[in-house]
Amino acid sequence: MRNILLTIKYDGTNYAGWQRQSGKRTVCGRLEEVLSSYFDMDIKLEGTSRTDAGVHALGQRATLRADIKVPIEKLAQVINTALADDRLEGISDIEIVDAKEMPEGFHARFDSKGKRYIYKIRNTKDIDIFKKNYCFHVREPLDLEAMKKAAEHIVGTHDFACFQTAGGNSVSTTVRTVSSLTIEKENEYLIVKIEGDGFLYNMVRIIVGTLVEVGLGKRTADSVKDIIESKNRSNAGRTAPASGLYLDEVFY
Amino acid sequence: MRNILLTIKYDGTNYAGWQRQSGKRTVCGRLEEVLSSYFDMDIKLEGTSRTDAGVHALGQRATLRADIKVPIEKLAQVINTALADDRLEGISDIEIVDAKEMPEGFHARFDSKGKRYIYKIRNTKDIDIFKKNYCFHVREPLDLEAMKKAAEHIVGTHDFACFQTAGGNSVSTTVRTVSSLTIEKENEYLIVKIEGDGFLYNMVRIIVGTLVEVGLGKRTADSVKDIIESKNRSNAGRTAPASGLYLDEVFY
Repeated sequence: MRNILLTIKYDGTNYAGWQRQSGKRTVCGRLEEVLSSYFDMDIKLEGTSRTDAGVHALGQRATLRADIKVPIEKLAQVINTALADDRLEGISDIEIVDAKEMPEGFHARFDSKGKRYIYKIRNTKDIDIFKKNYCFHVREPLDLEAMKKAAEHIVGTHDFACFQTAGGNSVSTTVRTVSSLTIEKENEYLIVKIEGDGFLYNMVRIIVGTLVEVGLGKRTADSVKDIIESKNRSNAGRTAPASGLYLDEVFY
Repeated sequence: MRNILLTIKYDGTNYAGWQRQSGKRTVCGRLEEVLSSYFDMDIKLEGTSRTDAGVHALGQRATLRADIKVPIEKLAQVINTALADDRLEGISDIEIVDAKEMPEGFHARFDSKGKRYIYKIRNTKDIDIFKKNYCFHVREPLDLEAMKKAAEHIVGTHDFACFQTAGGNSVSTTVRTVSSLTIEKENEYLIVKIEGDGFLYNMVRIIVGTLVEVGLGKRTADSVKDIIESKNRSNAGRTAPASGLYLDEVFY
């Protein structure tokens, strides 16, 4: 049986997240529906990351195991055509960026070595309703240098229990390694990029929520060290909204 | 009774248009629901333009007739707060930009002297799924000069029956005056601005669809003169998608 790794981009605004849920419009559900109908067989995908409702992806990964007959170099285009939404000129809010043949034993999630997320903060007094689903609007000015200093405390291998929302998948350990965390100004945006071997439930959004509170002067940069040491979620900042989060890349 | 003119901005992506329709999520319906609940009385709005599903507005106008007690200078903020969507940090996809006290006889639609629409064409080979709801993607290069030349034939007072979709409100005449029609390049976008005393059903979208066909070389610029003279819808181009259209301003 073929084992194909798909790289998938999506606008998560109108989806209840990646993972299929009966009765809800999900990215995985939509893809499985289109693929099953197109290939006339029951097709299931196994994704790398269960992105939440409203979270976007530039490079989600998922494996498709099936004996479909389309050559690998044509597969992305074939699926994109099947996904096309006529009303909007053949552009869906899901796009297959790449398809790659993998060995039979390969697993999109278990074989992943790490991921990078991007989080977009729009830091300007003027609200733009047309951008609301694609960033986190923060009206008050943020202190970028303080946020960068706070970020230094997060990089490394730590027990990140403080940055985890209860209710996700049960995990055997809350120790994770954040290999890189950068914040750069691009026009009216602050772009947070965070890379690591794995992330706890809502971890990126709670880290960003905490960094924003540092940027607003509600916490000191150094307080982040104490928050991590406390291992207590209630000491960290609020969970930043889903709209600003993009799963950027999965590493193998 | 107070007669208040509201200026309204909205992202029309997730609405079935402006006009209230039972069982559908519409901009007018959503506003009436929020206002009626907030002021605890039955509130109806009268809008200027019945924008279609997926069409956006920067300056829709609507009158609100009711004896509400809020001072005019605080009304926009009060409604915006009532509209706020918690999940997205208090930003709704509808925003009241302005509220103005008007004389009792004033009517948002009948007293309008004209309107300006903006249409955004994204003209680049690379699709961006995150922009699909906010423009019309045209992948093949467009000839801007040919489009500008075609636009000259449209400016003026003409019978625009060729640019009307059947099925809109019945109109006593299909003669309209287009006072201005410009097309400017802004980065990867072509921005069409069209101003006139009134527009037939789908008129802007059919004009844009026709201009795009001129830009692609499928029609000559001068053929637009013949299309208008024919008064026949089937001679014009296809209707450009709703996603690129913005009601920009209403004139009184």
